[in-house]
Amino acid sequence: MTGARLSRTARREQLVVLGHELIADSSFDAVSVDDVASAAGISRGLLFHYFPTKRDFQVAVAERAGDELLAATATDATATPLEQLRAGVEQLIDHVAPRRDAYISLVRGAASGEPELRAVGDRTRAVLADRVVEGLGLREVPPEVEIVVRGWVVSTEEVIVSWLVDRDLDRARLVDVIVDTLLLPIASRLDPAEVERLGRSAAD
Amino acid sequence: MTGARLSRTARREQLVVLGHELIADSSFDAVSVDDVASAAGISRGLLFHYFPTKRDFQVAVAERAGDELLAATATDATATPLEQLRAGVEQLIDHVAPRRDAYISLVRGAASGEPELRAVGDRTRAVLADRVVEGLGLREVPPEVEIVVRGWVVSTEEVIVSWLVDRDLDRARLVDVIVDTLLLPIASRLDPAEVERLGRSAAD
Repeated sequence: MTGARLSRTARREQLVVLGHELIADSSFDAVSVDDVASAAGISRGLLFHYFPTKRDFQVAVAERAGDELLAATATDATATPLEQLRAGVEQLIDHVAPRRDAYISLVRGAASGEPELRAVGDRTRAVLADRVVEGLGLREVPPEVEIVVRGWVVSTEEVIVSWLVDRDLDRARLVDVIVDTLLLPIASRLDPAEVERLGRSAAD
Repeated sequence: MTGARLSRTARREQLVVLGHELIADSSFDAVSVDDVASAAGISRGLLFHYFPTKRDFQVAVAERAGDELLAATATDATATPLEQLRAGVEQLIDHVAPRRDAYISLVRGAASGEPELRAVGDRTRAVLADRVVEGLGLREVPPEVEIVVRGWVVSTEEVIVSWLVDRDLDRARLVDVIVDTLLLPIASRLDPAEVERLGRSAAD
């Protein structure tokens, strides 16, 4: 398909997918517009026809990375809240592990400092936090739960980045500790009926 | 003292203190080199004699902010680990609350994206994490504890920033939830003797 005539939307999509694949093994800042254009079989000038600046292209790639992370961590709504939480954490780890350097550069690197790229990260975090709160299926959400979940999303990011660098825990213990970091402070702030419901599925 | 002849070290110190005071009520990026020079009674040109670039000055002010945060949260080593943890969290909240906008801009704003300013924040976080681990006084530190503490430092930052914006909890409940977010996941990974020691002081 490289070099072939594509619609504007298809071409943009193709370039973003290529950019996203090319950063998987390297830092986010290392995306080379030349490499992407050459992989797509088009000129650098034509790439800038679709994305006026390199920053525009990076933002589109970061949005794609965020969308894929959200898609990869979507959970089965018929499972219990506890199962969904655990599965979501496992999926998150398995999604970012093969994209370690790109993920680290988005979370901690210079990319996290560019306001527009940072905004993409913040939107992804906000969607994750909302999804986690919703997934708990609480009848009433105490303010502590909202705040714990927001903190948990960034601590999970930090914990996974540390783990990707050090690998000093096996994956199951990592998942356990991430799940506990959310559940334990929350459980003590819910009434027992709500806690009990965390272990029941919608169908139960 | 403004305008008076000062030693190089004293002048640098004076400028950093003034810069730190001036950002307390505003965003970190809003530090105006002109305002600082004028408050010190010196010319803009002379300020650049002490700090070759605005970035150098900002880094010095951020280091000062980090040092003051660390000084403000130092705890009494004769108290029990639990008391030290709780006191440290209270001191952190009380230290950043009157410097809300400066703190938010350092944690979340554009300042957090400048590599050199970000590095100052990372060093401050690393010192806090080491201090927290040490303060627990464990005979053996399981890898989960190291990783939970690192995540907890960033989640605490996020939780406090959210709280400074929304203020939807009273301070005591905020402190409780921050302390629990660290202690609950850790306690379940320590042997009972270690957990029991968290409630005892060195003198006990």
